[in-house]
Amino acid sequence: MSSKAIEFAQHQQERFVEELKSLLRIPSISTLPEHVGDVRRAAGFIAEELRRIGMENVRLIETASASHPNGHPLVYADWLRAGADRPTVLCYGHYDVQPAEPLDEWISPPFEPTERNGNLYARGAVDDKGQMWMHVKALESLFAANEGRLPVNVRVIVEGEEEVGGEGIAAFVREHGDQLRADVALVSDTEMFAPDLPTLCVGLRGMIYTELEVRGGRTDLHSGMYGGTAPNPFVALAQIVTKLKDEEGRILIPGFYDCVARPTEEELKAWKALPFDEEHYRKTEVGSSELTGEPGYSVLERTWARPTLDVHGMPGGFIGAGAKTVIPARALAKISMRLVPDQTPTEAFAQYKAYVESIAPRGVEIEVRLIHSGDPIVVSTDNPYVRAATTAMREVFGVETVFVRGGGSIPIVGDFVRELGMPTLMMGFGLPDDNLHAPNEKFHLANFHRGIESILRFFSLVAA
Amino acid sequence: MSSKAIEFAQHQQERFVEELKSLLRIPSISTLPEHVGDVRRAAGFIAEELRRIGMENVRLIETASASHPNGHPLVYADWLRAGADRPTVLCYGHYDVQPAEPLDEWISPPFEPTERNGNLYARGAVDDKGQMWMHVKALESLFAANEGRLPVNVRVIVEGEEEVGGEGIAAFVREHGDQLRADVALVSDTEMFAPDLPTLCVGLRGMIYTELEVRGGRTDLHSGMYGGTAPNPFVALAQIVTKLKDEEGRILIPGFYDCVARPTEEELKAWKALPFDEEHYRKTEVGSSELTGEPGYSVLERTWARPTLDVHGMPGGFIGAGAKTVIPARALAKISMRLVPDQTPTEAFAQYKAYVESIAPRGVEIEVRLIHSGDPIVVSTDNPYVRAATTAMREVFGVETVFVRGGGSIPIVGDFVRELGMPTLMMGFGLPDDNLHAPNEKFHLANFHRGIESILRFFSLVAA
Repeated sequence: MSSKAIEFAQHQQERFVEELKSLLRIPSISTLPEHVGDVRRAAGFIAEELRRIGMENVRLIETASASHPNGHPLVYADWLRAGADRPTVLCYGHYDVQPAEPLDEWISPPFEPTERNGNLYARGAVDDKGQMWMHVKALESLFAANEGRLPVNVRVIVEGEEEVGGEGIAAFVREHGDQLRADVALVSDTEMFAPDLPTLCVGLRGMIYTELEVRGGRTDLHSGMYGGTAPNPFVALAQIVTKLKDEEGRILIPGFYDCVARPTEEELKAWKALPFDEEHYRKTEVGSSELTGEPGYSVLERTWARPTLDVHGMPGGFIGAGAKTVIPARALAKISMRLVPDQTPTEAFAQYKAYVESIAPRGVEIEVRLIHSGDPIVVSTDNPYVRAATTAMREVFGVETVFVRGGGSIPIVGDFVRELGMPTLMMGFGLPDDNLHAPNEKFHLANFHRGIESILRFFSLVAA
Repeated sequence: MSSKAIEFAQHQQERFVEELKSLLRIPSISTLPEHVGDVRRAAGFIAEELRRIGMENVRLIETASASHPNGHPLVYADWLRAGADRPTVLCYGHYDVQPAEPLDEWISPPFEPTERNGNLYARGAVDDKGQMWMHVKALESLFAANEGRLPVNVRVIVEGEEEVGGEGIAAFVREHGDQLRADVALVSDTEMFAPDLPTLCVGLRGMIYTELEVRGGRTDLHSGMYGGTAPNPFVALAQIVTKLKDEEGRILIPGFYDCVARPTEEELKAWKALPFDEEHYRKTEVGSSELTGEPGYSVLERTWARPTLDVHGMPGGFIGAGAKTVIPARALAKISMRLVPDQTPTEAFAQYKAYVESIAPRGVEIEVRLIHSGDPIVVSTDNPYVRAATTAMREVFGVETVFVRGGGSIPIVGDFVRELGMPTLMMGFGLPDDNLHAPNEKFHLANFHRGIESILRFFSLVAA
C-alpha cells in the first residue's frame, strides 16, 4: 500500500507546497495579543484540511479559561477505524509561530513564503507549520491510496501555544488525557543532525522562562540631577546577571547543578562519533569570533546535556534613537534557563528566585516572575516504533538513523511521556541552518517531501 | 519703570499662562526624527511672539548642515537701541523637549497642558519652555511699561537642540559668536534649591553620552539550540557595566578621577549650611528604599561635584510581552557619564573607550560611540550682574539668594563662558520635584510669575 501512497505524494508535491504557503501566510504569532485572530484563523485552516482529507471528529478545543485567558484553541481529529488489532498513533504538531522581529533582517517578508535555492522561506516554515503539514499530507496520501482508509488508527492534535509554553494542551492532557490515548506519539518538531542524515531526537532540555523586574526611584529621574544618589535599575540588573553566570559560563545559582545527570557512556561515545565540525559550526551556524560556554564540555554536551542561562531582552528606560538622560524607575530582564534531566522546573525556579533575592543590590526592589516552564526529558529507544521509524527513514535516505538530543524544549513531549505513558518519537526533518526563531527561517523542500514519505512508510510499517 | 512693568505683568498673568500652554501643545521632541516638523513649529511660534512684543531682527537661523543633518533652527531676536552706555544682556533658553515616555505614567497627557494645584503639567513646562517664556514675558512687560523701549540692550537666542547636545548653537557660537556678543548671559534652565529660596546656579556638570554596541552571533539564534555555545550580547553588556562602576558607585575606568577638582572649603561650608534633609530628599524626590552613590561624599557633593555613570536603556533582543527564546545577535547599552571640573569630555571618552575595549568579553565584538558631550563649568560670582540678580530676587522673594551647583548639563553655558568670555547668570525657577525629563513634568505657576518679576527687576537694576 505504501508504494501507491508514495506515488500519490510524489505527484502532488507542488500542490502540497502551495497549500503550506497558504498556511504560512497567516501570521499566527501566539505571544502577541494583536494576532489572536490570526492564530484562530490558522487553527481553522488546519481543521478544514483534516476534514477534507478524510479525518473524522474534527474539532477545535478551546483552551482559554479564567486562569488562562489568552489560550489559543487545539485542533483535534481522529480516524479510529483501522481495527483494534492495529496500533493507534498520535500525531502532534503546532501551528503557532514566534514573532518575526527583527523584520529588517528578512530577505523576503516573513509572512510571504518565498522559494529560493530549493528552500521555502517564511516564519513557521520548519517550526512547525511545515513539519506539521508533513503529517497531514502523509495521511492524505494514505487515504488516497487506500480507498479512504488508513493502515493504523490515528489521532491528530495540533496546538497553538507551543511558542508560549503550551499551558492549554498541558491542562488538556492532565484533564482529558484519555481523549489522546494512543500507543505511540509522533512529533515532528526537531531537526536532522546533518543534511541527508536521518535523525531521531531522544532527549530535550526543559526550561524556565522568567522576568526579573528591578524598581529603583519613584519615577523616571534626570540623570544630571540624580546621578550619584538614585539607584539605577539597569546597573542593578547588570550586577545580578553577572552573579547568575560567571565569565566562563558556569551558572552560579547554589544547588543548580545538583540534579544534573551525566549522559551514559554509550551516549557520549555515540555523540563523539557524529559528523561534527566545531569550527564549521562556529562559523556557519553561530557566526561569532569564538564559542562560549562551560569549560570541559563538548559543544554537543553543552547544548544537549548541560543547563544554560540566557538573557533575551532588557525592556525599560530609553531605547529610541539618540539620547535621553533618564534614570528609569524600573527595568526588566527576560532571563531563561535550559534544564536537563534530572532537574525540575519547580526546583530550578525556586533556587533561582531565592538566589536572586539574596543578591539584590542596595536601593532597589526586585520581583522574579515565572512566565512558563517545561520539563527536560529523555525517551526510550527500545521499542517497535523506534525500529519502524528507523526502517522507514533508512528506506527513504539510504543510511542508518542517528540518535541525538535537542537543546530546545517541546513541553508537551514531557507530558506525553509522563502523563500518558506513551513512547514518543521525535522524527524531525529540519536542518541546523534553518534559522528557527530567527530571521530567514526556512524549510529545505527536499526534506519536506522526504519527511512525508518517511512518515507514510512509518505508518505502513507499524501496521504490519 | 519696573513698577509699571510689574503691574502690567500682574494684570496679564492669565494670558501669559494661556500662551505658554499653546507653546507646550507643540511636541517639539528634538531627538525623534518624526517630530522635526513640530520642533520647527515651536521655533516659529516663539519668533512670531518676539516680533509681536517689539523685538527686532527676529529670524530663524538654520543649523542643519552636511555634517549636522538633523539640526533644528535657532531663534534669534534683538533690541539694541537702549544706548551704548547701557549693558547688553543675552537671554538664552531652549524650546526643544525630552521624549515623554513612559506615556502611561502621565496623569494628564504630556502635550495637553493641564493646571492642577497651582502647577502647570506638561512636557517642557519647566524645562525649558516655561522658563524661556518668562524671559519673553518680562521683555513684553518692560516694552509695554516704557513706550516700546527696554532699559537695556537685549539679544535673545533660543535653541532647539539642548536636549540632544546643542551641536548647532555650539557651532554658531564658534563661527558667529560676535552676533551674540553681550555683557552678560541670562539663562533660566535651572532650579531653586528649595521652594521660596531664590537660587543662582554657579556650576554645572558636563557629560558624555555614549552607545555601547555588542555583537555576538551572525543572526538571532534560538536559545534552546545555541544556549551553551553562542555568546549572549546582554550577558556581555552586563559584564562590562559591572566593570565600569563597582557596587558602591565608584567608577572603575582607569584615570577617570585624576582631574576631578575638589570644591573650595568655602563652597563646601556653604553647601553644608543649605536647608537639606537627606531623608526627605530620599523619600519625596528619589523615592527609593536607599540612596546609592560613592561612599564618603554628601548628597550635594555626589550630585554636584563628583562624576557619575548611568545606564539609560539597553535596546535589542525581545522586549514585547510574553516570551521569545532568542539569543540576540546584537544589543546596545546607552551609557552616560556626568563630568565635573576639571575633567574634559575628550579625555573622559578616550579613557572610557580604551577601558571598555580592554575588558570586552570573549566571543563578542564591541563598538563604542560618542553621541554627544558637554563641558563641566563653574562661573564667577564676583560681578555687578550677580549683585543685580540677587537684589532683584531679594525684592521678589524677601530672602537672600543661595549659590548652588547643578548636577545636569547645559552645554551652551560652557561655550558662553569660554568662547565669548561672558559672565553667565543661571537664574532658574524650577523646583526639585518638578519631574524634569520624567512623567508629570510641571512648573509651579507662582514661580513662573515670580520669575517674570525677578527678571524684569534684574533688567531695570542692571540698567541703573
